[in-house]
Amino acid sequence: MNNVNSYIKEHKLRFLNELIELLKIPSISADSAYKNDVLKTADEIKISLKKAGCDHVEICKTDGYPIVYGEKIIDKNLPTVLVYGHYDVQPPDPLDLWHSPPFEPVIKETEKHPEGAIFARGACDDKGQMYMHVKALEFMTSTNQLPCNVKFMIEGEEEVGSSNLAIFVKENQDKLKNDVILISDTGMIASDVPSITTGLRGLSYVEVEVTGPNRDLHSGLYGGAVANPINILAKMIASLHDENNHITIPGFYDKVEELSKEERADMAKTPFSLENYKKALDINAVYGEAGYTTNERNSIRPTLDVNGIWGGYTGEGAKTVIASKAYAKISMRLVPHQDWEEITQLFKTHFESIAPDGVTIKVKPHHGGQGYVTPINSIGYQAASKAYKDTFGKTPIPQRSGGSIPIVSLFEQELKSKTILMGFGLDSDAIHSPNEHFGIFNYLKGIETIPLFYKYFTELSK
Amino acid sequence: MNNVNSYIKEHKLRFLNELIELLKIPSISADSAYKNDVLKTADEIKISLKKAGCDHVEICKTDGYPIVYGEKIIDKNLPTVLVYGHYDVQPPDPLDLWHSPPFEPVIKETEKHPEGAIFARGACDDKGQMYMHVKALEFMTSTNQLPCNVKFMIEGEEEVGSSNLAIFVKENQDKLKNDVILISDTGMIASDVPSITTGLRGLSYVEVEVTGPNRDLHSGLYGGAVANPINILAKMIASLHDENNHITIPGFYDKVEELSKEERADMAKTPFSLENYKKALDINAVYGEAGYTTNERNSIRPTLDVNGIWGGYTGEGAKTVIASKAYAKISMRLVPHQDWEEITQLFKTHFESIAPDGVTIKVKPHHGGQGYVTPINSIGYQAASKAYKDTFGKTPIPQRSGGSIPIVSLFEQELKSKTILMGFGLDSDAIHSPNEHFGIFNYLKGIETIPLFYKYFTELSK
Repeated sequence: MNNVNSYIKEHKLRFLNELIELLKIPSISADSAYKNDVLKTADEIKISLKKAGCDHVEICKTDGYPIVYGEKIIDKNLPTVLVYGHYDVQPPDPLDLWHSPPFEPVIKETEKHPEGAIFARGACDDKGQMYMHVKALEFMTSTNQLPCNVKFMIEGEEEVGSSNLAIFVKENQDKLKNDVILISDTGMIASDVPSITTGLRGLSYVEVEVTGPNRDLHSGLYGGAVANPINILAKMIASLHDENNHITIPGFYDKVEELSKEERADMAKTPFSLENYKKALDINAVYGEAGYTTNERNSIRPTLDVNGIWGGYTGEGAKTVIASKAYAKISMRLVPHQDWEEITQLFKTHFESIAPDGVTIKVKPHHGGQGYVTPINSIGYQAASKAYKDTFGKTPIPQRSGGSIPIVSLFEQELKSKTILMGFGLDSDAIHSPNEHFGIFNYLKGIETIPLFYKYFTELSK
Repeated sequence: MNNVNSYIKEHKLRFLNELIELLKIPSISADSAYKNDVLKTADEIKISLKKAGCDHVEICKTDGYPIVYGEKIIDKNLPTVLVYGHYDVQPPDPLDLWHSPPFEPVIKETEKHPEGAIFARGACDDKGQMYMHVKALEFMTSTNQLPCNVKFMIEGEEEVGSSNLAIFVKENQDKLKNDVILISDTGMIASDVPSITTGLRGLSYVEVEVTGPNRDLHSGLYGGAVANPINILAKMIASLHDENNHITIPGFYDKVEELSKEERADMAKTPFSLENYKKALDINAVYGEAGYTTNERNSIRPTLDVNGIWGGYTGEGAKTVIASKAYAKISMRLVPHQDWEEITQLFKTHFESIAPDGVTIKVKPHHGGQGYVTPINSIGYQAASKAYKDTFGKTPIPQRSGGSIPIVSLFEQELKSKTILMGFGLDSDAIHSPNEHFGIFNYLKGIETIPLFYKYFTELSK
């Protein structure tokens, strides 16, 4: 592609300001209080796609938040790239840990981002990474260098399970027909170590409720005589891991993909410092499944984590009460071949079976998705690899991510095409955490690299 | 005592309305947001004691909420009764489970209270039971039947540990000099089965904090690779009981008073229906320490209960986060001879010792108090027994309560006198729970019975 660098240089400030405006809208899909903000964000995406050169843009209604669809078809005989991203964001809490308000973006320099980074909820996940594709399209169309057809599908429910996107995809297979799906919603190893994500973990997310007595009780008059839902919940949660931190749910590991010695040896080559990892998190030791390294534990192995727990008196001071109910939100990260719906059922059956007399249990599945692996010999992967090589001067390293983009495996199943995960964020960008940020270098590097993917993918498709 | 019944009949409505006005003030000592209401309640108590006939009433400042002191000394040679009670109340939450606002008292009939009961936070614990003594004094003074001296000491920090009352008692031994201490802050077996509480459990209340990584983390990128503070907290809490529901803290049972076969056989005579107990709580089974009955578990055996737990995302929907911190409030009910400060230290040492690498632990002691037992052959017990016999037509049953009034053992230690616990509430009055209430029958029966205690105590003291 010609003049991509000069174009970026010329429009850099506008690229930053447009993203900052987008980040100011609190599009929190998990909290219905922000409904209007989520809808407003969809409208903004529609406008930006139109401006970037799409011939046709529409807001597609669903039973939940809408999907913004846009396309520019230049020649039916040329390949088509389908870009997927999401405009919703994670809830920002705990708010008191943010150094600046989550929806008032500020640019600050950090050790890892000497050129500065934009601090705001959604800066990296996924508004920033999604918007790189909009600006890359703008560059290609305004310089008449778009080498193939492009379709955009930007949803607003990724952080809450994409259930309506799944329906939309199934019902719009022609509209979404493509030769490759391109997503930037993952990370890279370091700003000078490009990588392409070749695997994602699946997800099963449930909420459990333990009910004991029909009302809160005085812990003096009833303490020791009735099942305390909080103690019981703690006991049940504790029993979900054994002394080696293996998950104890019967059948949980039955379909887990076991990697070969060679594959694990390749993984071990990824640059990684356990000391820096511990230092960055202020922990004196890592913790996890016996027999696996840290990088294996958070990528090729399934996990079970409590994401939230609550019950009883949590206010100031002391209240001597036995709560009637206790709750927890529990998520399991799954690896390829584990079916999320089957795992959810295994969890439910097991969790209900370990409840003692004196309490009743409710398990409410929230959402989930399958894991995913993509081969590195595909045209899509090769095109991405060449693009990174051009812009970073290094061949990117294939890596498994511990994260989940549940919809990816559904894309393959319904649209029969592979997904290429070109992530430009860093693990240290604190996505889902207070002070989420996205490096300006990474943002612009994405805008520079993406057009080259189009170029190479079109060439390799001939 | 003459005409007590006619006096109560004549003033019944006023007795109810005065209590209702007192219940409208949200004197929640655990929550500093209610500071002015707690202070206002102290003022109201002062006024009511003056009106009831105290010669001298004062509001005694402390480092916390004040203690209202009042006295009527008729003859230095006559015995002196010290009445203790508290004007602070438990927090009302969870608010959504109240059928009427906790500080807008309403009178409703219930199965156990056919004459009606006052529903409000503090109705029974302890504003209602404390106010019976104020009205009993009013009767005795206005009919010139007060047979001995009386002192009132009403505090505002009972629900948060009475730490300032303890200092006040130590520093005012002459002022508080008495021959017997009278408290109504416990319950009776049933409205037609009077009982006198002869034992109380001690209390140790702590708050624990488990810290893992220095910030909330994305559960996909870090799940399975770092210690999750919520999972760890659940595991640590679960380990505090063994498979027989014995508490596993080393040394915890060393000083526990073991009752004889005979004593346990006597206890077993107390009328009790396990079926009704389970039915009242909507539970299919009771739960507790192996080898003990329900009535033993909640009275003569020490316990450990989690009163509150929180951490991670507890809002609507799903957030795939690993929290940086998790918290729990944990209380232990103790039996005679267990020292609460020693137990608190044993807990702290043990809890810190079981923390795995990868997390740090903070244990913050909230408050506590010793258990208490009173002999049934004392003059005070005999006087109370005769009083109940007159008004209920039955000799009251001595019983151990599972609750704690930490200050009672301190009274004995500092003031060298025994405490008589004349409770008129029912276990089903939901103290510390939503919809706390106090039966009108019980309230008036207390006002009727208390003067007789003064009469018999004075006679037996001769």
